[in-house]
Amino acid sequence: MSFFTLRLTDAGVEMLDQRELPERERILRLTDGEQVARAIEEMAVRGAPAIGVAAAMGVAVELRRASDSELGESLERVCVRLAGTRPTAVNLSWALDLMRKELAPLLEAGAGAERVRSAADALARAIHDEDIAICRSIGEAGAELVPEAARVLTHCNAGGLATAGYGTALGVIRSAHAHGRVHCVLATETRPFLQGARLTCWELARDRIPVTLITDSTAGALMQRGEIDLVVVGADRIAANGDVANKIGTYTLALLARAHGIPFYVAAPLSTVDYGTTDGERIPIERRDPSEVLFFAGRRIAPQGVSALNPAFDVTPAELVTAIVTENGIVRPPLAPGLVRIGSVSS
Amino acid sequence: MSFFTLRLTDAGVEMLDQRELPERERILRLTDGEQVARAIEEMAVRGAPAIGVAAAMGVAVELRRASDSELGESLERVCVRLAGTRPTAVNLSWALDLMRKELAPLLEAGAGAERVRSAADALARAIHDEDIAICRSIGEAGAELVPEAARVLTHCNAGGLATAGYGTALGVIRSAHAHGRVHCVLATETRPFLQGARLTCWELARDRIPVTLITDSTAGALMQRGEIDLVVVGADRIAANGDVANKIGTYTLALLARAHGIPFYVAAPLSTVDYGTTDGERIPIERRDPSEVLFFAGRRIAPQGVSALNPAFDVTPAELVTAIVTENGIVRPPLAPGLVRIGSVSS
Repeated sequence: MSFFTLRLTDAGVEMLDQRELPERERILRLTDGEQVARAIEEMAVRGAPAIGVAAAMGVAVELRRASDSELGESLERVCVRLAGTRPTAVNLSWALDLMRKELAPLLEAGAGAERVRSAADALARAIHDEDIAICRSIGEAGAELVPEAARVLTHCNAGGLATAGYGTALGVIRSAHAHGRVHCVLATETRPFLQGARLTCWELARDRIPVTLITDSTAGALMQRGEIDLVVVGADRIAANGDVANKIGTYTLALLARAHGIPFYVAAPLSTVDYGTTDGERIPIERRDPSEVLFFAGRRIAPQGVSALNPAFDVTPAELVTAIVTENGIVRPPLAPGLVRIGSVSS
Repeated sequence: MSFFTLRLTDAGVEMLDQRELPERERILRLTDGEQVARAIEEMAVRGAPAIGVAAAMGVAVELRRASDSELGESLERVCVRLAGTRPTAVNLSWALDLMRKELAPLLEAGAGAERVRSAADALARAIHDEDIAICRSIGEAGAELVPEAARVLTHCNAGGLATAGYGTALGVIRSAHAHGRVHCVLATETRPFLQGARLTCWELARDRIPVTLITDSTAGALMQRGEIDLVVVGADRIAANGDVANKIGTYTLALLARAHGIPFYVAAPLSTVDYGTTDGERIPIERRDPSEVLFFAGRRIAPQGVSALNPAFDVTPAELVTAIVTENGIVRPPLAPGLVRIGSVSS
């Protein structure tokens, strides 16, 4: 991959500002937890795995600036703040729980402030590095699902930009492309935030993987004409029964895929599986500001006085999912026992 | 209705420039057939019935400026030019055929130039007025399909702006609303041209019909949550078997509606039925410029070098259509014989 999404340096959390892509490649340098929280809320960084990594880094930089005597309070406060930024992706609380579980015992044992800070840095970096390794494993596992000369549809951006690097759905595509099996990628633009147009097209074009942009509404017509061989998307949260919360529009693509006999794959790290949530109905769906739909690049596209709904995610029922690709391998229906089994494999 | 879409005056064809809505209400004054052809191509006016009316008016204004001795040639030339502007809507050739059939005999009989010109004006105005009357009949016929407190989903703009006035799908909604049966309208924004956001929201808000904007991808999630009672859309061409060509994304909505047990209605004048085309596969689908997808308001939303597909329409197979609402009444499956029967009713 020819770019980085985010990294922890001595200067702070450095991240590519995804709101500015593809026009500008601007790097943000964030030096406290609040700045990281806002970057997540305002979608300078997005994608379930990436915001998990960002949150861990947010804890690390917050502890750098906290006074030695307030490390415990700061840890608690920044974790609460970061956990509240976005409700749907479970990776956020997963990463914060890891940070807390590692750091709280150190604090309780009276470890020195610098030891706590360096442990926070090290764990945030480890979560980052592990996420890349996980994405590569997902990519390799999923590549075998991709037939020769495949025309692959993906939605939103489940790419290097949505993870620490390499990507989940785009990890599968990257690996399959490396094996010479991808004829082309069809990327839905993904309204309202245009992650497909702005981000997926940007990162695939940079990696010289052939990509064609379509509006979200065009996917059905392409499937009807037999021009899509498979669909692969990421996930923001997978319930224990295999229901998948992902970017709004995913459910529609899954239903279209089923109606046309096209396989529908979900690629996600096991940190996305929420074993404590029985089914998709219990997954909290973020409702974002209607202005994201009513305005485009600062320009009003609907008249004054008109309201809009802006749910950021939808839920695809498990029965529409052909398989879930994880770093430990592929889970096929029935998904519920398969997810339990694969979650207990030591990787 | 509190606006006009287009009209023929002594000054020429006056039309609301729909590219500028909702920001500005600019009236174009077009004084020859070429200007009208370009207005259709560039979508200053759009919607199958409206472009039929515009084409008839384009013939009328072209004949005003043609020299007396060249009326026949001008008629032929402008009809060819106008018929070639957009391929999918059949109303275009329907209206032009009407003009030719009325005017050619006059020319052959050696009628005076002014008589030919005034006949062209009168017929163009009659097509315009009849279209409004037809839309009102469609509205009344369709209103009975709308249950109490209905939450109605519509796609694109099949409204007063897509017709001479009142609208087809929005005609049904206007009539049902007048009967007190519409709780709310959900309007899909309809990428890439945003007819839903810019036009449907504008005209419904002006008529004080409650409307909420959603992205195209959100319709599935709303249906899944039981928040849509029916779908009603227009049509650009209906094949003899009942297959419906309409704005890209319509097919997806029809499939979603079927999966959720929601009725899916198509509202269109009989001039939209192409009895000479056996099925939807034979309907030519316009492929518009990829730049409409790649750019938004002059701003590039996908990186340099990325291509896009931009089919303007898709085809919904007859089996997904619950009923077609015409000015002569409602056609229910089997649609093929029903369309023949309703087409032979004298209205």
